[in-house]
Amino acid sequence: MTEITVGQFDLVYNAFSFAIATMGAATLFLWLNRSLVAPPYRMAVTISGLVTAIALYHYVRIFASWDGAFEVLGGQISVTGIAFNDAYRYVDWLLTVPLLLVELILVMRLSRAETTSKALRLGILAAVMVLLGYPGEVSSEAGTRWLWWGLGMIPFLWIVYELFVGLRDSIEAQPESARGLVNAARWLTVGSWSFYPAVFIFPMIGFTGGTAVTAVQVGYTVADVVAKAVFGLLIYAIALRKSEQEPVVQAA
Amino acid sequence: MTEITVGQFDLVYNAFSFAIATMGAATLFLWLNRSLVAPPYRMAVTISGLVTAIALYHYVRIFASWDGAFEVLGGQISVTGIAFNDAYRYVDWLLTVPLLLVELILVMRLSRAETTSKALRLGILAAVMVLLGYPGEVSSEAGTRWLWWGLGMIPFLWIVYELFVGLRDSIEAQPESARGLVNAARWLTVGSWSFYPAVFIFPMIGFTGGTAVTAVQVGYTVADVVAKAVFGLLIYAIALRKSEQEPVVQAA
Repeated sequence: MTEITVGQFDLVYNAFSFAIATMGAATLFLWLNRSLVAPPYRMAVTISGLVTAIALYHYVRIFASWDGAFEVLGGQISVTGIAFNDAYRYVDWLLTVPLLLVELILVMRLSRAETTSKALRLGILAAVMVLLGYPGEVSSEAGTRWLWWGLGMIPFLWIVYELFVGLRDSIEAQPESARGLVNAARWLTVGSWSFYPAVFIFPMIGFTGGTAVTAVQVGYTVADVVAKAVFGLLIYAIALRKSEQEPVVQAA
Repeated sequence: MTEITVGQFDLVYNAFSFAIATMGAATLFLWLNRSLVAPPYRMAVTISGLVTAIALYHYVRIFASWDGAFEVLGGQISVTGIAFNDAYRYVDWLLTVPLLLVELILVMRLSRAETTSKALRLGILAAVMVLLGYPGEVSSEAGTRWLWWGLGMIPFLWIVYELFVGLRDSIEAQPESARGLVNAARWLTVGSWSFYPAVFIFPMIGFTGGTAVTAVQVGYTVADVVAKAVFGLLIYAIALRKSEQEPVVQAA
């Protein structure tokens, strides 16, 4: 991490600050507007805001860790010797990634039995996926990184299968006005989640030194903003659309 | 930035603190009074407060960055070597400028299709406008600044056109009691937004050194307070006026 330039440092610094602003704004939006959706959809909206709130906390930590790892003085950058803490991201994902799938399940409003079984299965798969990624992330050896990447891809592909095959009938059963949005949420999940394994392999495909660090940090940040904040707003839009079909929409 | 005087430093310092107080107060006002408007206008009010909240966050950061860039001791000012971070403003604008147009669209309460299409078009234009400004802002070369200024003016003029021509019929269709205020909001948008390209060219038209830095920072701060906090209060006034026409206004 010694080869980083001032421009790279600034880019990552500003990306982290952007994530703080975005996660904070998304959390406030979701919680303040929760009362505008019908009661059966409020849990999904609460959890969407919880995900961005957990991410907000971790981005405040990540920002401080980044700022503490380098010193920029008079246009010159040097390392302070304090290590940048990579683990914040994995702790964040261990909590938020299962919850993102729970958001989707809850807003679909399936039967209680189906909600429980699908939320449990997808939640556990997501947690296992994150745990399998970590040993690879902290390794600087390409072989080790590829091994854990490959292992993590197994639950990832299983989740994709569940979203497209396991949820097919449930999505068909959604009210027509919301079906397009639910389908978009499914695609946004798969699309934005694909960023993570792609960013993970940056250091294994020729990115080195400061370029690798910058590409990984900015890449994960963009992926987090899309997968959590943009996804949360999509869940909110689904909840709002489906609320219109409720007999009485209570405004509080 | 070495040529700045203690007086100039203090002026910018106090302008930033003024912005923190104003953005914080506007956010609290909007969110605390949200329940006093009818449910269909609450989203517009929430987003107005979100804009000032995001600006509050960034002014806290900008203030700290300014304070960290200089040291004033015994009436003497010196630079610390830590650069003042210009990027906070652009990150802020990237998020808040599209949202300001969304506020205006939402409080007009158009049809769903019209709301979506106008919010999307204006939001994207606003984001592109901000992105085009940044390469010019960080350049100290007049030619580069003029180039990006000119490019950024294209989406700006397009937005002005959309506000005056594209929204003409929708504004005519507003209830009479609110029409004047909606029209004022449109003019306030164009008027306060014109400040930004004007402030941007200060360093290109003879302002130099500390005078340029001070004029730009104070200029942007005044523009932000008008475009976000004053505009937010105007959106609130429109929401309140239009709520009087709702069959039942629920206060919670």
